[in-house]
Amino acid sequence: MKLYQFDLAPASRRVTFFLMETGIKVPIVQLNVRDGDQFKEPYNSLNPFNCIPFLELDDGTTISESVAICRYLEETCNVPTKLFGNNSQERAIIEMWNRRVEIDGYVPLINGIRNKFERYKGKVLPGTRNDLPQVPAIAERGIDACSILFKKLNTHLKTSRYIAGEGFSIADITGYEVVGLANALEINFDEFKDIKAWHEKLDRRFKLGE
Amino acid sequence: MKLYQFDLAPASRRVTFFLMETGIKVPIVQLNVRDGDQFKEPYNSLNPFNCIPFLELDDGTTISESVAICRYLEETCNVPTKLFGNNSQERAIIEMWNRRVEIDGYVPLINGIRNKFERYKGKVLPGTRNDLPQVPAIAERGIDACSILFKKLNTHLKTSRYIAGEGFSIADITGYEVVGLANALEINFDEFKDIKAWHEKLDRRFKLGE
Repeated sequence: MKLYQFDLAPASRRVTFFLMETGIKVPIVQLNVRDGDQFKEPYNSLNPFNCIPFLELDDGTTISESVAICRYLEETCNVPTKLFGNNSQERAIIEMWNRRVEIDGYVPLINGIRNKFERYKGKVLPGTRNDLPQVPAIAERGIDACSILFKKLNTHLKTSRYIAGEGFSIADITGYEVVGLANALEINFDEFKDIKAWHEKLDRRFKLGE
Repeated sequence: MKLYQFDLAPASRRVTFFLMETGIKVPIVQLNVRDGDQFKEPYNSLNPFNCIPFLELDDGTTISESVAICRYLEETCNVPTKLFGNNSQERAIIEMWNRRVEIDGYVPLINGIRNKFERYKGKVLPGTRNDLPQVPAIAERGIDACSILFKKLNTHLKTSRYIAGEGFSIADITGYEVVGLANALEINFDEFKDIKAWHEKLDRRFKLGE
């Protein structure tokens, strides 16, 4: 088994935090996706969607998509920490929150960043190279979508220790990356005090805050 | 247990097809989300994200998000048809494909439709009412993103019976809705013959084709 990563990318960071929290160990190969390694062989054949992270299993099967990789590792490696939940109801609540944070925050902000910053020219869609233009209105819409999410999430975090309840879960990892992207797009956090407090707790947890 | 739906909405249709395929029966309540039922009580408190579908469990817990609802029902109702897979590797491959089709097709097209058609004025983001403008460039970007997905998916379907392999899965249901949205946005299908053939197979399966 081999995990292909690019450590700086938000999608790879989601898997990195998952591995850190669960203690699961997987051999890692770094691909420089900024230089286009993912379009070269054998990587293009391993993952024709040309994104990292992806996991190559011993039988040659490739699993891409951070959440699919993490769930697979949680199911197959026998570790006590379950970031996807311990029973069906916990799994459903965690998946619900992970999707809310991802679809209303992570995806619109990834699109926002790719449509704003110079270094994503020609790469406005993940896993592609083309001449689609950067559209400032897409960056604006990403900020608006995420601000609506943050208002609801802030209210929720007043009474919830972590995003999906009392226990730390994969939804917190996704949320942590959303805050990183929101900072890059200079979203104003003044009114989101409970998100800030939760994020500081995670900074300490991940030992990045000091 | 009660499932809150609006039968015409793509997100509700995903759960409808899942129930049809698995034979799982759940009492259903229709909310008219076009008239804003989801913002009224008790629905606003049941799901503060103001989207359908959502599932109210007997203990009062709400599960929203179509994929979380379907996975929960598959795990808790003892049915032989497993649309999320029969083992960890199948589940990972199905989740990978479901995410690819959803993130590269379903989400950009939902955004596209809401930014194009008159009746979504004031509702450009799911679960919201506000004065964010409809942006034609977001509709265009949705079409471009989905066309890139369709090119890859068409190649894949030349050698794969269903989206995630030999067996029908939740990824096919998501894909089926993506084609419906693509038709509404008049995406040209001439070059996607294998997607067309797969879609006709599903039309027959769902008995909507004749």
